[in-house]
Amino acid sequence: MHGSVGLVMTMGALHQGHLQLVRAARESSENVIVSIYVNPLQFAPNEDFDAYPRDLEADMALLETVLAEGDVVFAPSDEEMYPREPLVRINPGLIATLFEGTTRPTHFAGVLQVVNKVFNLARPDVAFFGQKDAQQLSLIRTMVTDLDMPLEIRAVPIVREESGLARSSRNSYLSENERIQAQALSQALSVGRDAAARGAGPEQTLRVAREYLDAADGVRVDYLELVDPETFQSLAGADGVAAPAAGLLIVAAYVGPTRLIDNMEVVFRER
Amino acid sequence: MHGSVGLVMTMGALHQGHLQLVRAARESSENVIVSIYVNPLQFAPNEDFDAYPRDLEADMALLETVLAEGDVVFAPSDEEMYPREPLVRINPGLIATLFEGTTRPTHFAGVLQVVNKVFNLARPDVAFFGQKDAQQLSLIRTMVTDLDMPLEIRAVPIVREESGLARSSRNSYLSENERIQAQALSQALSVGRDAAARGAGPEQTLRVAREYLDAADGVRVDYLELVDPETFQSLAGADGVAAPAAGLLIVAAYVGPTRLIDNMEVVFRER
Repeated sequence: MHGSVGLVMTMGALHQGHLQLVRAARESSENVIVSIYVNPLQFAPNEDFDAYPRDLEADMALLETVLAEGDVVFAPSDEEMYPREPLVRINPGLIATLFEGTTRPTHFAGVLQVVNKVFNLARPDVAFFGQKDAQQLSLIRTMVTDLDMPLEIRAVPIVREESGLARSSRNSYLSENERIQAQALSQALSVGRDAAARGAGPEQTLRVAREYLDAADGVRVDYLELVDPETFQSLAGADGVAAPAAGLLIVAAYVGPTRLIDNMEVVFRER
Repeated sequence: MHGSVGLVMTMGALHQGHLQLVRAARESSENVIVSIYVNPLQFAPNEDFDAYPRDLEADMALLETVLAEGDVVFAPSDEEMYPREPLVRINPGLIATLFEGTTRPTHFAGVLQVVNKVFNLARPDVAFFGQKDAQQLSLIRTMVTDLDMPLEIRAVPIVREESGLARSSRNSYLSENERIQAQALSQALSVGRDAAARGAGPEQTLRVAREYLDAADGVRVDYLELVDPETFQSLAGADGVAAPAAGLLIVAAYVGPTRLIDNMEVVFRER
């Protein structure tokens, strides 16, 4: 391949969010590689690996609307990716035990293994990941830094509906009423962000967001936290002298039976 | 860099064994990179990281005798290699807990971390490692396979003195008498190898090598095993139907206070 290579990793079942990533890659790279692979290593035995939707034809049809001549779709088999159970593994460390890792303790180790492999196979100059999966993004950045992997990670902003709801394939599970209730997630994050912009410190920022979400109808909060966007360490209690300049408000919540996640950057006013 | 890149990783304190690796790289690659870095991550707190010999000037003088114009010596600082304690780590898996890993449980994780990093920084086409550190070699090969790293690992055969003693910087610790006693290691491996060539199975091959070494003067055996050279799983007890075609006899033993290691490939006669 001549020229720069941009990589977008997917598990297929493509939707507009993925196409946004591919468009970002297409705009900034001479060659685009899109990988489609449902990575068994990031599913726990009790999870939906077998049921995960696979429709390569539909995915290819969607990709044809955004890819250019010479771009590559890489859709390997399990046998190609894991000819044996891997012996050497990526240990994702502390960040992977927090938040999304609490309920899925082996998930991020599986994600980093396949991301590391595909980086080595595709050798991109830039890889594009959605800001929506903020913790995954943080872990991938950490791996690239700690292993000196020769590429740049670029975050693509969350795509939101007009109501503020972050786009997700899981939104299709929501009833009409739940879809309205689900707006409370992004609204709570906005309330926190606006409070910080008006001068609230980390503690207060988190409190007003929590109060908003706790009062919302039909929402059961899993977690709502204000964290350092790199380390995912909590920033609450950092109202003191060394207050941070910015943070990430992260949320996971159930609306009906559907678990949704969202996040928003928060910039603190200098005081 | 134009043309192929050969990499030799060292911790400095260079001797003829290292130069043999560099010569192998020089012969087969258009560009050679030699790294010199005493990797703190592969030393346990009770080990000799601080006392490890460092003499960059002497190392450079030796390298000048074998390197060519345009070759590179990469001698980074700790600050460059580990600007922070790495959060994402290489988990070397089961092989790293065996044999050399028994007494040094964190050693190989530290080795693989730095090897992975330097591979990503130097991006060699071929990396050269000594067959003497057979378990390290096996783990590096496993990592390259499991993470699809885009390079070839080439093993450079053990350099032996006329007596059969494998060259090692630690041989300088041996008294004249101990140096003679130390010959028993390579002799025991040869006895096993020759028995296999004459038709002995794995079990018998290992037994004759052990008997030889147990009878040797001044040698205290740490381990002597016959293993699969890739997985380091024991091959003893494999005398049955599915007898292996080849194996690796590995040994670690004390001669006086000095711990020596050696290994030898064993090819079984078809029966």
